[in-house]
Amino acid sequence: MIIVMSPEATEEQLQAVVAKIRQAGLTEHVSRGTERTLIGAIGDERPLSEQAFEQMVGVERALHIVKPYKLVARENHPTGTVIDIRGVKLGGNQIQVIAGPCSVETQEQMHLAAAGVRAAGCRMMRGGAFKPRTSPYAFQGLGVTGLEYFQAAAREQHLPIVTELMDVRMLDTFLEHDVDVIQIGARNMQNFDLLKEVGRVNKPVILKRGLSATISEWLMAAEYIAAGGNHNIILCERGIRTFETAYRNVLDITAVAMLKKETHLPVLIDPSHAGGKAWMVPALARAAIAAGADGLLVEMHPNPCEAWCDADQALTPQELNELMVSLRLIATAVGREL
Amino acid sequence: MIIVMSPEATEEQLQAVVAKIRQAGLTEHVSRGTERTLIGAIGDERPLSEQAFEQMVGVERALHIVKPYKLVARENHPTGTVIDIRGVKLGGNQIQVIAGPCSVETQEQMHLAAAGVRAAGCRMMRGGAFKPRTSPYAFQGLGVTGLEYFQAAAREQHLPIVTELMDVRMLDTFLEHDVDVIQIGARNMQNFDLLKEVGRVNKPVILKRGLSATISEWLMAAEYIAAGGNHNIILCERGIRTFETAYRNVLDITAVAMLKKETHLPVLIDPSHAGGKAWMVPALARAAIAAGADGLLVEMHPNPCEAWCDADQALTPQELNELMVSLRLIATAVGREL
Amino acid sequence: MIIVMSPEATEEQLQAVVAKIRQAGLTEHVSRGTERTLIGAIGDERPLSEQAFEQMVGVERALHIVKPYKLVARENHPTGTVIDIRGVKLGGNQIQVIAGPCSVETQEQMHLAAAGVRAAGCRMMRGGAFKPRTSPYAFQGLGVTGLEYFQAAAREQHLPIVTELMDVRMLDTFLEHDVDVIQIGARNMQNFDLLKEVGRVNKPVILKRGLSATISEWLMAAEYIAAGGNHNIILCERGIRTFETAYRNVLDITAVAMLKKETHLPVLIDPSHAGGKAWMVPALARAAIAAGADGLLVEMHPNPCEAWCDADQALTPQELNELMVSLRLIATAVGREL
Amino acid sequence: MIIVMSPEATEEQLQAVVAKIRQAGLTEHVSRGTERTLIGAIGDERPLSEQAFEQMVGVERALHIVKPYKLVARENHPTGTVIDIRGVKLGGNQIQVIAGPCSVETQEQMHLAAAGVRAAGCRMMRGGAFKPRTSPYAFQGLGVTGLEYFQAAAREQHLPIVTELMDVRMLDTFLEHDVDVIQIGARNMQNFDLLKEVGRVNKPVILKRGLSATISEWLMAAEYIAAGGNHNIILCERGIRTFETAYRNVLDITAVAMLKKETHLPVLIDPSHAGGKAWMVPALARAAIAAGADGLLVEMHPNPCEAWCDADQALTPQELNELMVSLRLIATAVGREL
Repeated sequence: MIIVMSPEATEEQLQAVVAKIRQAGLTEHVSRGTERTLIGAIGDERPLSEQAFEQMVGVERALHIVKPYKLVARENHPTGTVIDIRGVKLGGNQIQVIAGPCSVETQEQMHLAAAGVRAAGCRMMRGGAFKPRTSPYAFQGLGVTGLEYFQAAAREQHLPIVTELMDVRMLDTFLEHDVDVIQIGARNMQNFDLLKEVGRVNKPVILKRGLSATISEWLMAAEYIAAGGNHNIILCERGIRTFETAYRNVLDITAVAMLKKETHLPVLIDPSHAGGKAWMVPALARAAIAAGADGLLVEMHPNPCEAWCDADQALTPQELNELMVSLRLIATAVGREL
Repeated sequence: MIIVMSPEATEEQLQAVVAKIRQAGLTEHVSRGTERTLIGAIGDERPLSEQAFEQMVGVERALHIVKPYKLVARENHPTGTVIDIRGVKLGGNQIQVIAGPCSVETQEQMHLAAAGVRAAGCRMMRGGAFKPRTSPYAFQGLGVTGLEYFQAAAREQHLPIVTELMDVRMLDTFLEHDVDVIQIGARNMQNFDLLKEVGRVNKPVILKRGLSATISEWLMAAEYIAAGGNHNIILCERGIRTFETAYRNVLDITAVAMLKKETHLPVLIDPSHAGGKAWMVPALARAAIAAGADGLLVEMHPNPCEAWCDADQALTPQELNELMVSLRLIATAVGREL
Repeated sequence: MIIVMSPEATEEQLQAVVAKIRQAGLTEHVSRGTERTLIGAIGDERPLSEQAFEQMVGVERALHIVKPYKLVARENHPTGTVIDIRGVKLGGNQIQVIAGPCSVETQEQMHLAAAGVRAAGCRMMRGGAFKPRTSPYAFQGLGVTGLEYFQAAAREQHLPIVTELMDVRMLDTFLEHDVDVIQIGARNMQNFDLLKEVGRVNKPVILKRGLSATISEWLMAAEYIAAGGNHNIILCERGIRTFETAYRNVLDITAVAMLKKETHLPVLIDPSHAGGKAWMVPALARAAIAAGADGLLVEMHPNPCEAWCDADQALTPQELNELMVSLRLIATAVGREL
Repeated sequence: MIIVMSPEATEEQLQAVVAKIRQAGLTEHVSRGTERTLIGAIGDERPLSEQAFEQMVGVERALHIVKPYKLVARENHPTGTVIDIRGVKLGGNQIQVIAGPCSVETQEQMHLAAAGVRAAGCRMMRGGAFKPRTSPYAFQGLGVTGLEYFQAAAREQHLPIVTELMDVRMLDTFLEHDVDVIQIGARNMQNFDLLKEVGRVNKPVILKRGLSATISEWLMAAEYIAAGGNHNIILCERGIRTFETAYRNVLDITAVAMLKKETHLPVLIDPSHAGGKAWMVPALARAAIAAGADGLLVEMHPNPCEAWCDADQALTPQELNELMVSLRLIATAVGREL
């Protein structure tokens, strides 16, 4: 940590900072500049708080130098993590496209959806049984019945399933129904009690980025899961909130490049939620693979016009098929498998 | 709802939209313009989804006209709600400043804090026993022990208490410890299962605005609580996330004016979290009262330099005292009581 | 335009709106709903202002339905525009990568840069003689001497040049020095007097998106140029400003998909300014081409370590070479030429 | 400046950084930590660029410690600047409310407006003769004729005038027509050629904040003007661009507190453009004065319904009158004069 003293700081104020550094078991290094004096705190600075120094008289600013995340940092784990989901590999050279409907509606819809996912060559399926909805009056998901419909359809096609967990009290039910990958949604990215709980189980977790979460906050949320012992974490960028109103969110493609440098965890892109419109999905999906993403989470519905939620962002089975063809060309161009 | 057809839409496509409107039990009103045709859906449009229309061929846009919130809307409840918290009124003509430390640390700290809150003339106290922290390695709060320290100190000073609930599984414990006001933090504003649970109890709830939640999303989160039967809801603006890096958040003072128009619920401002620095608190607090807020949530610590979290944003008891003096002048200037 | 009356609007207030619509030469269409009444204004609504209606008593909202841009809209010009720059085509099937240094420094640097641009297979060159710098104390560009160095180097390699115009008073000088493409920078996107002036000349213009300009504002800025008679406009997305601090800007890849739908003008991406770091450029560049961009504006410097500005975002000539190889694979994958 | 070396940096890479620091005439101070080594560059660091260090191999980050602005910094000028505008003081203890219409329309409108401004007790008048409009098809202002109408009306009421300059070529005309205060609009905040020109004249300048300009960029724009020799600079916050769509902009009240600490220049608030609605103006105006602003820029129109632009944000003369009454109460509460 570096503590920047203000130009008018006194020697006593400086010594108080030095004392606080030593008290924490670190050593100080004082650099007296022409306008300001800097104090470096040398040692493991992670437990020090910038705020504890910034409120001291004579201190202008305190800056952490070491990254706050450790278990998820690539610095400490240079090789990219490959996650095995019932035999399906995600990460490394292997790209995966996880497709399926926004929400589970009926057993028949799920059978059709699963067949479409399989036919397009995808190896995992997504679908929501518990839905986070902005309005209390909107359809909230079929709940446990939805999980059952989902598993019945997906198992038939040998597709591992991904579904969202919103409530800690439902975790046991997820495990009993043998959910393969637990998804933590954007709105729960900093629901720390939920993160702690999924950190204790031995199931892969897809952690979606909060609508306005920084890369650092997102990696710290992943660190919560990892700190509990579960290192099977997959990050998923799904568009961030900005001033632009022409589309629902702005897909942050730069995040892919940054995450590949900062963490060893696999990175997915959700082009369906990012743009909010089915016609945008192919362009965003191609960009994601070209930028180095390890896969996609894509909405597909056997009959989008009849979808109970997010109707205008789901692809048809035929469109998913065409998307996969064009994505394989991009994957080959960047030297990876799909 | 208004459905805007694209310029090249056919008569068949228009008729499909009309059919869908009628199917939902509403009637249509077609306006053929020079460039585009509009279709108005007349009736209770709340169950209709914009997306279900926007994915239809020939439709360019669908727009809700009626607001999505009902129970919390001022339209349906013109008089402002006054909430009674163990005899302390919040809302109407009465402004309340709720002060206290960021986190409960020791019994002694809480006794000193409660005495300071009382001495400054505040009538309610805040303090965190369960803390949402960005890092899993940071202090997470004293938990139930913290609740006990808090109640012991506050009851002595006859101060109702406000404290944050993060985990649904803790709600019963909160009720057993007789927490007076349950706070839902910014990161949990769209933790819908938590909202549903506090909607079922008969305790006032302070609902903080999410870091990048729109006014509409925030009111819909309040609607979740109200829909459960609990109408004792207090909104609290605590700064929003923007591009600016010179301060932690941007206090959205415009939200006060807008909320006073849109909802009958009381509105607080948290100037401590908004600015992130104790020296900013007086200016922001005065602005809040001048703009029409019903009160404040302010951090005060008997010894800020020793605070275990957010050290640089807490006022000293003396500073809280001075703040109250200056706020009373502003309250008088706007014709209210503090 | 649609005018939404508030629930308590009186018949007189409604008639006042109707009168105002008729006064503007349009006709009204009144839809009386269960909660609100809507009035559609039928005819050419472009001259009507939403604000003029919204300040009328009884009006809740007024909404334009027709897009505010006309000349640049794809609706009125379905085929994509191809721009010819001294024989080099931009748009249609042909992708162009325009490379060169951030700023013109010396004649020798420009000769080396031009040779590097040519060797990598690029067909146009960029470089700044007039530099918009945040600080008045930073290097402001070589000015006219810079234009001369640039032309001397680029003409030798038969490369048309792109350079930024900041001051209307310099336009004649640009024309005298035979600048091939005039760039309008992000900070001047709404410098309307500058837009009007470049609208009067017969030179292609690259219009960069403002740091927080919406798609609509950007297209309206292009409309300013087109309204002056100059239709040779190229749009360039260069990253938008958001809450994220891990990188300089967020490259808005969704804008490419949206612009391809909304306008017939070619769209470039500037991956160098977006990310702000040379190591990010390849990933962002590949994403841009995969998403459908018509080309790139890339910073390359013969010796990045010695660059006078933006040193850490310039590629070396060798890196540009490698980038072009990988971009050609992506171009082929999406069925285009580079 | 502090240069943070990456964990794997070699001794040679560190020595290269040291050499570069010495070459710039500064001295280094090396702190070897347990994970990373820091190098402090001691001396006048302003000419050093962070980027020039960040592109060196082995460097992780470079951070300026000294603020980039000098002439406008309070650090170098502890007393707040008071600006004298034809005898009217702005800054110090004196608050000023500058009112008038968005745009100059007719001579009669300006006479009525000037009389209203005077009657409300305001001492300066605003009005636009040259208007920056998003659309090329919207009313662009009356130009020089507008200046004449404005002066004729304002002089009669002995009101100094404030009006916006958009084009450098118009500066002489502004001086000939004896404009008292030159306004630089939000869209031109970083039109550096315009800033340089107004830096050369001896007229007060109101510099509005760009829609998404940081405090630092804004102060650097002011530094451009000051660096030219003109120190009569007034800053004006007018709302920033965020994700919120319920109002036009978010008034950044925190900026007032921060600017009072960082700069000696007076600070105005424009509540009319911030909120975009006349009904919001009183709440925002009161908040501004309570937070410590030195004045306001407020839109008033003798007949808002007939205004040619921004009709729904202008107050009536009567509303301005009432606003002044309530603002005087707030001014008194904070110990200042209005």
